[in-house]
Amino acid sequence: RRGEMAKSTQLIDNEVFRAYATYTAIVLLKMMLMSLITAYFRITRKAFVNPEDTVSFGKGESAKKYLRTDPDVERARRGHLNDLENIVPFVGIGLLYALSGPELSTALLHFRIFTGARIFHTFAYLIPLPQPGRGLSWAVAYSVTFSMAYKVLKTVWLL
Amino acid sequence: RRGEMAKSTQLIDNEVFRAYATYTAIVLLKMMLMSLITAYFRITRKAFVNPEDTVSFGKGESAKKYLRTDPDVERARRGHLNDLENIVPFVGIGLLYALSGPELSTALLHFRIFTGARIFHTFAYLIPLPQPGRGLSWAVAYSVTFSMAYKVLKTVWLL
Amino acid sequence: RRGEMAKSTQLIDNEVFRAYATYTAIVLLKMMLMSLITAYFRITRKAFVNPEDTVSFGKGESAKKYLRTDPDVERARRGHLNDLENIVPFVGIGLLYALSGPELSTALLHFRIFTGARIFHTFAYLIPLPQPGRGLSWAVAYSVTFSMAYKVLKTVWLL
Repeated sequence: RRGEMAKSTQLIDNEVFRAYATYTAIVLLKMMLMSLITAYFRITRKAFVNPEDTVSFGKGESAKKYLRTDPDVERARRGHLNDLENIVPFVGIGLLYALSGPELSTALLHFRIFTGARIFHTFAYLIPLPQPGRGLSWAVAYSVTFSMAYKVLKTVWLL
Repeated sequence: RRGEMAKSTQLIDNEVFRAYATYTAIVLLKMMLMSLITAYFRITRKAFVNPEDTVSFGKGESAKKYLRTDPDVERARRGHLNDLENIVPFVGIGLLYALSGPELSTALLHFRIFTGARIFHTFAYLIPLPQPGRGLSWAVAYSVTFSMAYKVLKTVWLL
Repeated sequence: RRGEMAKSTQLIDNEVFRAYATYTAIVLLKMMLMSLITAYFRITRKAFVNPEDTVSFGKGESAKKYLRTDPDVERARRGHLNDLENIVPFVGIGLLYALSGPELSTALLHFRIFTGARIFHTFAYLIPLPQPGRGLSWAVAYSVTFSMAYKVLKTVWLL
């Protein structure tokens, strides 16, 4: 019985933490998807960067022509890097935020808006949609992370 | 009252964890700032990479000339990537370190030196300061993360 | 005595969490090693990107010739970026997975395969080994992270 009480104070039973875990897994999986999209464009556009990757397309000079950049590959790579730049702060600050004791409804609002904005951002980058679609979705997700950081610093501040 | 006792064993009430949360939020916000600096240089130098981003500067050929690289934009981008390469290990290893039970004063020393070194690194990169200013600040922050990793592995080792 | 009991419910005493901490520290240190490998190639190949980094090799025009790209430097940098793209999801999803209550043996299997695959990936990239060596090691590590994400979402799902 003591054990069960101990268990019930575990992070994973906390609703805010469960919401954080759900949305973090979703945005990290979305970020991982960018690798597959880049690989898809590299293979269909035959645009590689490592000589050893072109061997199956021919030998010597005939393979060398596939060592080139392609606009679609570069676009997917930029989307991936933008994910790293924005999802890493979300995962780190979001964890601290989830542990800082926010209301579940407030936390869900933050996580949902961030996740929605980043999924929209990916579509806006890859289609691409005309600006300011991509810029706005970037700014919305950025603001959500900033808002969580503010709550964290207000709660924990120990310099 | 039982609830309060449970609360008082929460991570967020642990002083080392509060210090970790404070410095992690600060360095992640600093990293996020690099996006704004890059955007500032892109707009003032009129140097973009996505065709859809240049539309507000003109149509057709007159917009194409803004699809170019600029030394200040590239410098800010390199600073941003260097942040990712170094702040990600700090956030990950720092969390494990904070949970491994270090003295508060030792932990604060690690967090403060890392944060100071990375803030200096950004100034050294953007101004730019002559070497070895940037190199040394990189090495100091790198060593702090390494020191925390050593403490973590010594404490938790389970392969 | 109450304090000790509280201590024994700490994360760091949980075996799965200790395994997570061990492997996370190892893969993050491995990722940090890529910075040293890039620096090694930059110095031995004399290939730099920042003008202030070439000053010790000469002044003016004689230093400018060292502002160039080098295949080995670029290869190490691609390996580093690939680490960021794949180790960041492992660290984030792995933490949630470790907290979701998996069997120790299952967790160790995930952590060991991921770590082994990423270390192999680095050798495959730097030597380089012929494909599909690098591709397969990338896919194995990717699948492990995906498997952990599936377990996390099945356990915590709260949208």
